[in-house]
Amino acid sequence: MTVGDRANTAEDPAEDPAEGPAEDPAEGPAEGPAIGRRSFLRQGGAMLAGAAAGGVDRAGAQELAGQPWEREYGAPMVGYGQPSRFEKAVVRHVLRPYGDLAPGTGAALAPIERLEGIITPSGLHSNRSHSGTPDIDPALHQLLIHGLVEQPLKFSIDALLGYPMLTRILFIECAGNSGRNLAPQPPQAPAGVIHGNMSCSEWTGVSLRAILDQAGLRPAARWLLAEGADSAHMSRSIPIEKALDDAMLGLYQNGERLRPEQGYPVRLLLPGWEGNMNVKWLRRLKVVDAPVHTRDETSRYSDLLPDGRALQFTFEMGVKSVITRPSATQQLSRRGLHEITGLAWTGAGRIRRVEVSTDGGATWADAALTGAERSKAFVRFRMPWDWDGRPAVLQSRATDERGAVQPSRAAWLARYSPGNAYHNHSIVSWGVASDGRVSNVYA
Amino acid sequence: MTVGDRANTAEDPAEDPAEGPAEDPAEGPAEGPAIGRRSFLRQGGAMLAGAAAGGVDRAGAQELAGQPWEREYGAPMVGYGQPSRFEKAVVRHVLRPYGDLAPGTGAALAPIERLEGIITPSGLHSNRSHSGTPDIDPALHQLLIHGLVEQPLKFSIDALLGYPMLTRILFIECAGNSGRNLAPQPPQAPAGVIHGNMSCSEWTGVSLRAILDQAGLRPAARWLLAEGADSAHMSRSIPIEKALDDAMLGLYQNGERLRPEQGYPVRLLLPGWEGNMNVKWLRRLKVVDAPVHTRDETSRYSDLLPDGRALQFTFEMGVKSVITRPSATQQLSRRGLHEITGLAWTGAGRIRRVEVSTDGGATWADAALTGAERSKAFVRFRMPWDWDGRPAVLQSRATDERGAVQPSRAAWLARYSPGNAYHNHSIVSWGVASDGRVSNVYA
Repeated sequence: MTVGDRANTAEDPAEDPAEGPAEDPAEGPAEGPAIGRRSFLRQGGAMLAGAAAGGVDRAGAQELAGQPWEREYGAPMVGYGQPSRFEKAVVRHVLRPYGDLAPGTGAALAPIERLEGIITPSGLHSNRSHSGTPDIDPALHQLLIHGLVEQPLKFSIDALLGYPMLTRILFIECAGNSGRNLAPQPPQAPAGVIHGNMSCSEWTGVSLRAILDQAGLRPAARWLLAEGADSAHMSRSIPIEKALDDAMLGLYQNGERLRPEQGYPVRLLLPGWEGNMNVKWLRRLKVVDAPVHTRDETSRYSDLLPDGRALQFTFEMGVKSVITRPSATQQLSRRGLHEITGLAWTGAGRIRRVEVSTDGGATWADAALTGAERSKAFVRFRMPWDWDGRPAVLQSRATDERGAVQPSRAAWLARYSPGNAYHNHSIVSWGVASDGRVSNVYA
Repeated sequence: MTVGDRANTAEDPAEDPAEGPAEDPAEGPAEGPAIGRRSFLRQGGAMLAGAAAGGVDRAGAQELAGQPWEREYGAPMVGYGQPSRFEKAVVRHVLRPYGDLAPGTGAALAPIERLEGIITPSGLHSNRSHSGTPDIDPALHQLLIHGLVEQPLKFSIDALLGYPMLTRILFIECAGNSGRNLAPQPPQAPAGVIHGNMSCSEWTGVSLRAILDQAGLRPAARWLLAEGADSAHMSRSIPIEKALDDAMLGLYQNGERLRPEQGYPVRLLLPGWEGNMNVKWLRRLKVVDAPVHTRDETSRYSDLLPDGRALQFTFEMGVKSVITRPSATQQLSRRGLHEITGLAWTGAGRIRRVEVSTDGGATWADAALTGAERSKAFVRFRMPWDWDGRPAVLQSRATDERGAVQPSRAAWLARYSPGNAYHNHSIVSWGVASDGRVSNVYA
């Protein structure tokens, strides 16, 4: 493997001029010799040489062998494109706890270990549903605003599409995401199976405040009951403060009308709050003076405390991150420089910092961030790592704009009863064995 | 239609806290009484009332009638989701100039008149192809770097996937986009048919500079020949300065591996430069000392000047905008407040300002912008408009970070020979008749 005479100055991902000001944490306090952006800049050429160990060949004077597709006229233009047939294995992890008895009940989890960037493709957006995906005719669907309002109103979808719109990139995470990582033994499964009950899309829709203002809130208005049109009539209580802050009625996802699995023809969006409050297939908002205590907010999603009590509601999702590559069930094919990458997010707003450790939390270095200027959206972090072939434990730790730091697994567990299954935003650890195999570990 | 007692303060789209600092042009110099953000803020309630003229009903004590899908168990979880069957009309505009003789030759244009936000869904991303979409096996595809390099190299796709990645939201626009609007009479077709040969995705890939550095450029290196693996071997010459600036090898589009129609398994990305230089199905980059004058850069894409000469190359796409709604073939259903919205972009970098006129350019007001912090990406603009039922001509005019202003149609035409078909970035005009019908007009 010959590297040319020119300096091998790999572009620094943090310098991407398109994504606004990135954190510049190059002077992180605990940067070791094998990790961090400075070492990346020093060793950029080595990383490229390392990456090249497999799949990069010296080429002689001969050019490429021709392939069949270079001699055949290609496929026709079509109205709506699809992924390559060679990517058919890239699908959601479908979990159906009741099997064929209830094939629409459960979750279809985003395969985050095979995705890149910040946007989740709509076809792979995580889907948590209680009674399958309804097949809603938008010409018949209506949204009712009633209860403690001056004038109850019913909106057709066409009417909602006529309102002024907002566009935001937002994450949605299920309150039960990463609950699987509370099992006694760490599950050995792809990252998406454990942590993929979350996704991030560009959403466009109408300000909920504008709609509520049109109906006219009465003075006693304190909460909303939001109800879906699925056959479970999935329902949650929403504080009026959130409804009047940044809540939206989502009509478009990643540019097109939202998908049935994400709530077509209209869903509630509560930026940064737990997934199932973002009620899909929204049919009704009833303005009330107190939480309704629906089945969906009392049978689930309550955090159990060590003293036997429960937190009634935990709306905002905690500061969190997960390394998506390398991650459990993957394999490092060689020693040398690799890119560690993953996602970070917080219900509080913006991500300020993501640190990465390769020694189980003994030392940390700051990762480069893409998208950190956005609030309540995924941030992509990246970190070069020169793997020396010895066992390692990879972790990431996010800090948000309020200064909240993602807790260790031990610290998070100490806050709750062992029976608590929700809001696990603790640090995720991936073990790397000397043979390059990556496994899920509790560290 | 009763509007409640509370102040009807519709959220201002420009205040979206997630999308970074937006322009605040509320004090635009020529803001008339019927357009602009101040009037929107004053008349927010009226806009909502106007929007409500169709499809919003007073609701009585009765609730919503139940729909069949509320009583039926929904569809099962699936690995890869699709749009609603009720959206099947939302497809690309497929133009096949040779019909069934060459069904993959032509363009599939984004239906921008039916899309929202900034991201184009991958299934609706515009596709301009010369010999159809090749069905490439990524395990067999290789990228050759050769010519004036120290060490010619061949890269497998797996090897490229092991390099450090960059993520950017970028537009791609065909040099021939909007050429249809140079016909003697304005074509009466949806906005996407005329202006939809462009799209915007989140792209993730490898810095081209890093790859070139690994091969080692020789001192005489000045240009690259980029060649696709389609059966046309579509080829363009690229100045080395662009290759070493912000060029990327695109591997992921909107989070997943890029689609075959967009160049799977790897394409060149030249942010802000004309579409077909972003060579799809990239198989070869030959480093050379001068442009190659391939068929694809001599038979097309040269701008003809009034004196009979031609501009050899026009790489950077000009500052441009188009109103997507309302647009030709659409219909305003009522008088009153509407949202005028559209897209703006520039190959120069960031969009600084978008102005909207409803009187054919006599007066202008500044629109609210979403995404203006990003370079070489679409910006969504929005403007409220109180339509009084009289004929109107809607226009938008973008200004970029260099101060370049989108030219009028007359000014643009004066620069070129009447035979020139490329790089039409002039102001687009939509006429609104008193019956609400919207048509394409030259103004």
